Amino acid sequence: MHNAVRILGVDPGLRRTGWGVIESAGNRLVFIACGSIETNERAALAERLVCIHEGLAQVIGELRPDEAAVEATFVNKDATATLKLGQARGIALLVPAKAGLSVAEYAPNLVKKTIVGAGHAEKAQIRMMIGVLLPKACPQSHDAADALAIAVTHAHHRTSAALRVAT
Amino acid sequence: MHNAVRILGVDPGLRRTGWGVIESAGNRLVFIACGSIETNERAALAERLVCIHEGLAQVIGELRPDEAAVEATFVNKDATATLKLGQARGIALLVPAKAGLSVAEYAPNLVKKTIVGAGHAEKAQIRMMIGVLLPKACPQSHDAADALAIAVTHAHHRTSAALRVAT
Repeated sequence: MHNAVRILGVDPGLRRTGWGVIESAGNRLVFIACGSIETNERAALAERLVCIHEGLAQVIGELRPDEAAVEATFVNKDATATLKLGQARGIALLVPAKAGLSVAEYAPNLVKKTIVGAGHAEKAQIRMMIGVLLPKACPQSHDAADALAIAVTHAHHRTSAALRVAT
Repeated sequence: MHNAVRILGVDPGLRRTGWGVIESAGNRLVFIACGSIETNERAALAERLVCIHEGLAQVIGELRPDEAAVEATFVNKDATATLKLGQARGIALLVPAKAGLSVAEYAPNLVKKTIVGAGHAEKAQIRMMIGVLLPKACPQSHDAADALAIAVTHAHHRTSAALRVAT
């Protein structure tokens, strides 16, 4: 694909970190791969973070994305859950940045709005729209589907930004 | 020093991450080095996390600690602050674990109790007691002093644990 940019989307979580890689050229989107990195709940926190690090480093090493996008964590009222998510998210931001990729962040509402057209879409709607936008993708988990949604959101917004600069 | 164990203590923070390295052999504690990794508040979050990662990786590479201890983050009511701290803390746990070190976690109150004898000590008291316990240390920041306090806490508790196993 000419001038295609390969995008890695990441939906970070301590238990499961979803990832998805797509290629974007103009209006065309092509599914490359997606998956989910699961960590053992009984393992020590530091080991679980190493597991997320290694999983993402392997994805980047094998699929060589050009840019990355990470879901901006939903800050909720449960401080312990927010802390856990923050720790996983730190790794999700670190790994692509260490590999020299630019790392964009998108709020969950913007992802939903971009994919479904509404800021309060259900996870099932996201998954369905991913099937429409990327017919060859069949994500096995919501995390992988969300990661693809983040990658698509980046494809959309980076193009808009480039067009704005071009005109 | 015979049977000395070299301990890295880390007080994680997005703006400033304190670190301190000591050696512990029986009841003796020896100060090795300490410092603080500061990140640019205007830089992107992912870049700041890379900065913390590189700083800690350099400390571990040069000073070759055997074990690490990280302060368990104080979960407060400000969810945004908790998330920021969580992201920095994820890196502080990751780097030593990736280098093959065991990583212990200690709650702030246990650190204060171990160093000062009371769970609600002021930062200035921690700093003063670090001067007594490690006369050669003169940490330039509260973060570095806190990191040394965490290392001393680990030296104390790992020995107690070993004695319990031995008897």
